[in-house]
Amino acid sequence: MPRTEGLGAIDDERERFINRYRGIREASEQLCRPLATEDYVVQTIPEASPPKWHLAHVTWFFETFLLKAFVPHYRPFHPRFEFMFNSYYNSVGAQWPRSRRGELSRPTVEEVYAYRACVDEAIASLVGAATAADWTEVAWRLLLGMNHEQQHQELLLADLKQNLSLNPLYPAYREDLPAASGRQAPALSWLHFEPAEISVGYSGDGFSFDNERPQHRVLLEDFWLASRPVTNYEFLAFVEEGGYSEPSLWLSDGWSVLQARDWHAPLHWRLIDGQWFEYTLAGLLPLNGHEPVSHVSYFEADAYAAWAGKRLPSEEEWEQAAIGRDIDGNFRENGKLHPEPAEEGRRQPLQLFGDVWEWTRSPYGPYPGYRRGEGAFGEYNGKFMCNQMVVRGGSCVTPRDHFRASYRNFFYPHDRWQFLGIRLAEDA
Amino acid sequence: MPRTEGLGAIDDERERFINRYRGIREASEQLCRPLATEDYVVQTIPEASPPKWHLAHVTWFFETFLLKAFVPHYRPFHPRFEFMFNSYYNSVGAQWPRSRRGELSRPTVEEVYAYRACVDEAIASLVGAATAADWTEVAWRLLLGMNHEQQHQELLLADLKQNLSLNPLYPAYREDLPAASGRQAPALSWLHFEPAEISVGYSGDGFSFDNERPQHRVLLEDFWLASRPVTNYEFLAFVEEGGYSEPSLWLSDGWSVLQARDWHAPLHWRLIDGQWFEYTLAGLLPLNGHEPVSHVSYFEADAYAAWAGKRLPSEEEWEQAAIGRDIDGNFRENGKLHPEPAEEGRRQPLQLFGDVWEWTRSPYGPYPGYRRGEGAFGEYNGKFMCNQMVVRGGSCVTPRDHFRASYRNFFYPHDRWQFLGIRLAEDA
Amino acid sequence: MPRTEGLGAIDDERERFINRYRGIREASEQLCRPLATEDYVVQTIPEASPPKWHLAHVTWFFETFLLKAFVPHYRPFHPRFEFMFNSYYNSVGAQWPRSRRGELSRPTVEEVYAYRACVDEAIASLVGAATAADWTEVAWRLLLGMNHEQQHQELLLADLKQNLSLNPLYPAYREDLPAASGRQAPALSWLHFEPAEISVGYSGDGFSFDNERPQHRVLLEDFWLASRPVTNYEFLAFVEEGGYSEPSLWLSDGWSVLQARDWHAPLHWRLIDGQWFEYTLAGLLPLNGHEPVSHVSYFEADAYAAWAGKRLPSEEEWEQAAIGRDIDGNFRENGKLHPEPAEEGRRQPLQLFGDVWEWTRSPYGPYPGYRRGEGAFGEYNGKFMCNQMVVRGGSCVTPRDHFRASYRNFFYPHDRWQFLGIRLAEDA
Amino acid sequence: MPRTEGLGAIDDERERFINRYRGIREASEQLCRPLATEDYVVQTIPEASPPKWHLAHVTWFFETFLLKAFVPHYRPFHPRFEFMFNSYYNSVGAQWPRSRRGELSRPTVEEVYAYRACVDEAIASLVGAATAADWTEVAWRLLLGMNHEQQHQELLLADLKQNLSLNPLYPAYREDLPAASGRQAPALSWLHFEPAEISVGYSGDGFSFDNERPQHRVLLEDFWLASRPVTNYEFLAFVEEGGYSEPSLWLSDGWSVLQARDWHAPLHWRLIDGQWFEYTLAGLLPLNGHEPVSHVSYFEADAYAAWAGKRLPSEEEWEQAAIGRDIDGNFRENGKLHPEPAEEGRRQPLQLFGDVWEWTRSPYGPYPGYRRGEGAFGEYNGKFMCNQMVVRGGSCVTPRDHFRASYRNFFYPHDRWQFLGIRLAEDA
Repeated sequence: MPRTEGLGAIDDERERFINRYRGIREASEQLCRPLATEDYVVQTIPEASPPKWHLAHVTWFFETFLLKAFVPHYRPFHPRFEFMFNSYYNSVGAQWPRSRRGELSRPTVEEVYAYRACVDEAIASLVGAATAADWTEVAWRLLLGMNHEQQHQELLLADLKQNLSLNPLYPAYREDLPAASGRQAPALSWLHFEPAEISVGYSGDGFSFDNERPQHRVLLEDFWLASRPVTNYEFLAFVEEGGYSEPSLWLSDGWSVLQARDWHAPLHWRLIDGQWFEYTLAGLLPLNGHEPVSHVSYFEADAYAAWAGKRLPSEEEWEQAAIGRDIDGNFRENGKLHPEPAEEGRRQPLQLFGDVWEWTRSPYGPYPGYRRGEGAFGEYNGKFMCNQMVVRGGSCVTPRDHFRASYRNFFYPHDRWQFLGIRLAEDA
Repeated sequence: MPRTEGLGAIDDERERFINRYRGIREASEQLCRPLATEDYVVQTIPEASPPKWHLAHVTWFFETFLLKAFVPHYRPFHPRFEFMFNSYYNSVGAQWPRSRRGELSRPTVEEVYAYRACVDEAIASLVGAATAADWTEVAWRLLLGMNHEQQHQELLLADLKQNLSLNPLYPAYREDLPAASGRQAPALSWLHFEPAEISVGYSGDGFSFDNERPQHRVLLEDFWLASRPVTNYEFLAFVEEGGYSEPSLWLSDGWSVLQARDWHAPLHWRLIDGQWFEYTLAGLLPLNGHEPVSHVSYFEADAYAAWAGKRLPSEEEWEQAAIGRDIDGNFRENGKLHPEPAEEGRRQPLQLFGDVWEWTRSPYGPYPGYRRGEGAFGEYNGKFMCNQMVVRGGSCVTPRDHFRASYRNFFYPHDRWQFLGIRLAEDA
Repeated sequence: MPRTEGLGAIDDERERFINRYRGIREASEQLCRPLATEDYVVQTIPEASPPKWHLAHVTWFFETFLLKAFVPHYRPFHPRFEFMFNSYYNSVGAQWPRSRRGELSRPTVEEVYAYRACVDEAIASLVGAATAADWTEVAWRLLLGMNHEQQHQELLLADLKQNLSLNPLYPAYREDLPAASGRQAPALSWLHFEPAEISVGYSGDGFSFDNERPQHRVLLEDFWLASRPVTNYEFLAFVEEGGYSEPSLWLSDGWSVLQARDWHAPLHWRLIDGQWFEYTLAGLLPLNGHEPVSHVSYFEADAYAAWAGKRLPSEEEWEQAAIGRDIDGNFRENGKLHPEPAEEGRRQPLQLFGDVWEWTRSPYGPYPGYRRGEGAFGEYNGKFMCNQMVVRGGSCVTPRDHFRASYRNFFYPHDRWQFLGIRLAEDA
Repeated sequence: MPRTEGLGAIDDERERFINRYRGIREASEQLCRPLATEDYVVQTIPEASPPKWHLAHVTWFFETFLLKAFVPHYRPFHPRFEFMFNSYYNSVGAQWPRSRRGELSRPTVEEVYAYRACVDEAIASLVGAATAADWTEVAWRLLLGMNHEQQHQELLLADLKQNLSLNPLYPAYREDLPAASGRQAPALSWLHFEPAEISVGYSGDGFSFDNERPQHRVLLEDFWLASRPVTNYEFLAFVEEGGYSEPSLWLSDGWSVLQARDWHAPLHWRLIDGQWFEYTLAGLLPLNGHEPVSHVSYFEADAYAAWAGKRLPSEEEWEQAAIGRDIDGNFRENGKLHPEPAEEGRRQPLQLFGDVWEWTRSPYGPYPGYRRGEGAFGEYNGKFMCNQMVVRGGSCVTPRDHFRASYRNFFYPHDRWQFLGIRLAEDA
């Protein structure tokens, strides 16, 4: 990741850095407050790490890339934590296997909080004490570390949802989440976009990830974009009309996955005595048909689009629709932690930001001119640029102040444990 | 399991039953007192259940077979617990998969203790209130349930050892376990047994499992039996002389397992910087060569015997050696929770009881005349009589008052997470 | 395998040896005459080797243990054949993986026949030229090699049946096999056997495998033995009354296998438009209810017995029933290559020999006093003495002159690709 | 696939169609002439079908989409062949599993040739007898079927190479292939391409696959393209300098595959006594360093590029380099069936066509405006547009008259059994 970008919007005051740092660190712990100690530990699929691991891993990130690098004679909190809480940085060293993070009862939750406190104190000292020569790099790494922790806040919630969802008791993450809006989603309409040569990617002077850069020019033909995401009602029609048993609608790899995993509906749907329910962070609730469908894989999104006679947008088309829009929507700060029905009368396309990440037909790859960074930071994004698909727009568990219109998130086409939804497009 | 046996030693006082019940229930909780909440949750192999599951499962056993059966209008503590805590009783109903017991953060540990307390109270009432007509059956089921819970106490410790052992921090279950004895094991000698026709199996009027019955006559040729189990030093010679790389020593299936699982030493041995350590319930300790080798599979036991030019005893030979002996040895009540070096001058064969279960060459099967019981109780032992091998003698985590000389325990030949050791034999 | 046994019945004339050798070698090729070249190549499960491999492997056995050992300056037919056609003799060297024998198009069938011819010629020379000092060992190894080739003749037919059975064209091995007898099996009756102390195992001076020795004394209680094997009609009742969906009938491991492999009937049964068919070496035929059920696993045999309220006999009980009987039955020489309905009026128990191997409840293990041989011959039987069950009696594809009443064959409890059937027993 | 394209270049004479058909059919059989019957049968990986299957499948394609569709009362050659030889057309019906094509000894090779002859005769009749109304569709499907058979000719050779390569005898497909050229590859140089807006995709009136259409405009920045593919010598340096043990060079998924499959060099390389060999269709030969490296996966191509400090070209960049070039190179018609060293003095970039397919950094997806066809033809290409990468340029086993500059082939990033090589690119 280039070292000279991402700092423009931040003034010289180290004070502001340390305050933002503290706010983000506190937010992570805030998210965990409703948990029982036991909830911090379990992992039900390789992708969904335990909360305890998230809390420790983001701390290890600061410890490794800031404290070990810039604090003279820094003594790690515990010599084995690097092995246990390194996620995938081979240039740093070997790692405890990802799929087995739920096997570790120790360190205890309490010890992890002590680890966090200890690192926080050392970071505060470093911010105060860093030499002017070091400060640019320290500040850039802090910024990266804070964005990294915010990414893990989103993962923590989606992973937790996954890990609680399999429990026969259907436990709620929080009993006090606001009830669903009674709003009805407006009818779907289609927005026309003209052929255009547009700029894609980030070019500002704030923070962005390397995969959003460099900005580059792209030719787009005209197309139609759906005014809102696909709703549960719409997706239910696909389910009930046999969408999951008609191979002609599915990508070949998708059909294989569907059969191997015995998929019949989105991840968290449950059919109980003939009625559809959905597991949510508030527990098991009757399926709300007006909400955007969520927790569908790319394969399901693509099959739904085929069934509807449409297609998914490319990420460039999606970005064209986002140009010039304020970042506004149902993000984590909203406190719902669940997608909401679209609201009539808002700026179209509705729900472009927040609620659910929207699958695009674009495989995740490097933008023209992209170069992977050197060393560990080069492993942050670049090595995943294969076999995954781009999703755009953020979700109801994405921190709003972490999000940009150029933000590229990416998942395997079979993944569905995140808040992943569908917006349709069509050739003009 | 025949209903008329196992009660003879118990007089008519219901008081004695309830006291024994309370003692056993308390012992389970006592064993868990050193645990962190997180330790109650994890499972690292399908065989090694989390402590929380053990505590709930043994409770479910009493609830199902006593409270639901004999208490009018009994309302289960929680309707889903039957699904979650039934182990393998298909005649009772479906079960949460065994290999996924570590995925359940709920019920919490606290809720499990509440479940235990609630069932304990109801059992106490039942013991007082059962009709005379019911009492025989109630008493027999209580006795079975208590023995069942004692079995799970042993499993709980071995499972816990397994689940902590993979943790890079090598946590101790208890820091306050007594240090190893400095004793040296005496040299191995050989005891001769004459040809004989002996009675094998349980014939007393105390409690025994159905797999120990009926007692039957068996012809034995004469043989030699080792005066004590194989020690770590002896087994180390096998390791260091290439025992794990010489296929001719191994059973064909054993060699396949060794290769697939990359075995190079007993389960809990660790070679660190050229020195052998052993993970124990007291944490990682230097390997004590005088202790009996433990945590070896049948395949390893058999290969060691082949390497030593000996063989393993049959269970009938083992039982011949045990005739007329007092049950005395390093059992759980000893408080060591680890095998000890054999002690010169004690009655030979040394360490026949306690310390480590001893692999026999006998596949686990029904005794002549055995009949599997009806219904759920028939699933207790009979359905496992295939593909497993008999071990005899109990171990350092077996409750002494749960053990009999006729006790048959059984494991798959690849299992090694229990305290499993080796005693050699030889044809005369 | 002790070197001094198995030769008594054979006089000193080398002529007789070479004639018997030629007859057995010719029989293998005779069995393959109906095959298309393509049939020699395929393998559909790891257990079922291609005919080409069998023809080459038995040849390699003679080449390795006779020609390489006793012919000065012997030059192997091809340097890579040892790697390709060694089955499992680790003391000889590494092996091409068993499960991938169907991946080898070369050597061609023609080349394999050339290999056979070349080895046959060299064996004939060796028999003539061996020194008197060598002859004892040569003769013993020849005898073993011939018995080995006969074992593979049986395997070749069962494997071929397996490998053709999956083909959607249901090809017949031979179109000219005799039609099934129209005979009806007599009603099942029960034969009583008295308590006894009997001798089990081989004690004659003819050839026997090491696993049949040493003969030893065994105490048996009295029991009932079924007058004939279970028929297809009888087993069909088990199928149709839900035997494959009632877990209480099954061993725990059996129930797991049934679910994993989706078993609903014996291996070669096919339900087509509501009618049961059976794939046979003569192609797909309507199921003949009077024939003994075949191609069932131990798990199915045990579950059937549980359903019928009976049990399987032990191998000692089976051998007691065989004492003093002539070896007579539907063996391969009969030319049917399929089990036949039992025939009223023959000596009871009917069909004790031939037709189908009969599962016993006895795990395959060493007889008391058994010692595994040294070197490669020690790998012949001993290393398989774990996890398998003994079957007795031979089958319709067993060469009669290869069979003895003490013959122990053994398979994993999930195996069912051989001609494996069921005879019931009951405690007296 | 649109029905109105692909016919312009072909005049109205049905004679020309049937002649071309016969030529292509004959070419398939010509390719198989060197095979032993056994070679037609085996399959060593799911991707590499047996020759027999290819010969039957392409025939089934004509039978299904022409004879069954246009010949009144057509009676299929065999009712089960549709199940056995349908590859992946779910809209036609169920299929024998791809990974198990090597389990089928029947139909025999001879029967497959009879099937071919029978279908050929019926196709010739249909071409003569089709009504004028049918002819347009018949002609289009014939054209598709012929291109389909040519694709399978290439697959047949690459699959055969795979299937023979694992044989310890290293058999040659043909002993009479021409020896390698002694030519030395010229030094690598870099060709500069200007920024451009180009047309990508097919726009002619000859045959093309639907995935090459519609032609569309793309913006390209300037870049450098290597003058020739990477050679074995160059790739050997990567191997010997530890490229396969340095995770920082690899995509994350690539590193996982490398570890799981234990990759240390390109697929067909063999290190024997310290010398590198390569398995070829002419058997095992010393590695020729001047030839283009072949049989590397996308992961290896990408890692090599990272090691070299370069990148792979996009498919659009590749197509820019191909604009206006004659199709000329080392194709199958050359008779080498192996890549050759680049030749100094030829038009640059050298070896753009033929020799080896060149991995691009472009995931295989639909061109803007692409729509999947209806029914079975819609399954031809569209359902594979996920998880695969585009390769360009054809190979030494591609029929030249089947190839176009716009031709898009595609493989999974872990695939390496085809003739797949590397051309580097670099940002300007």
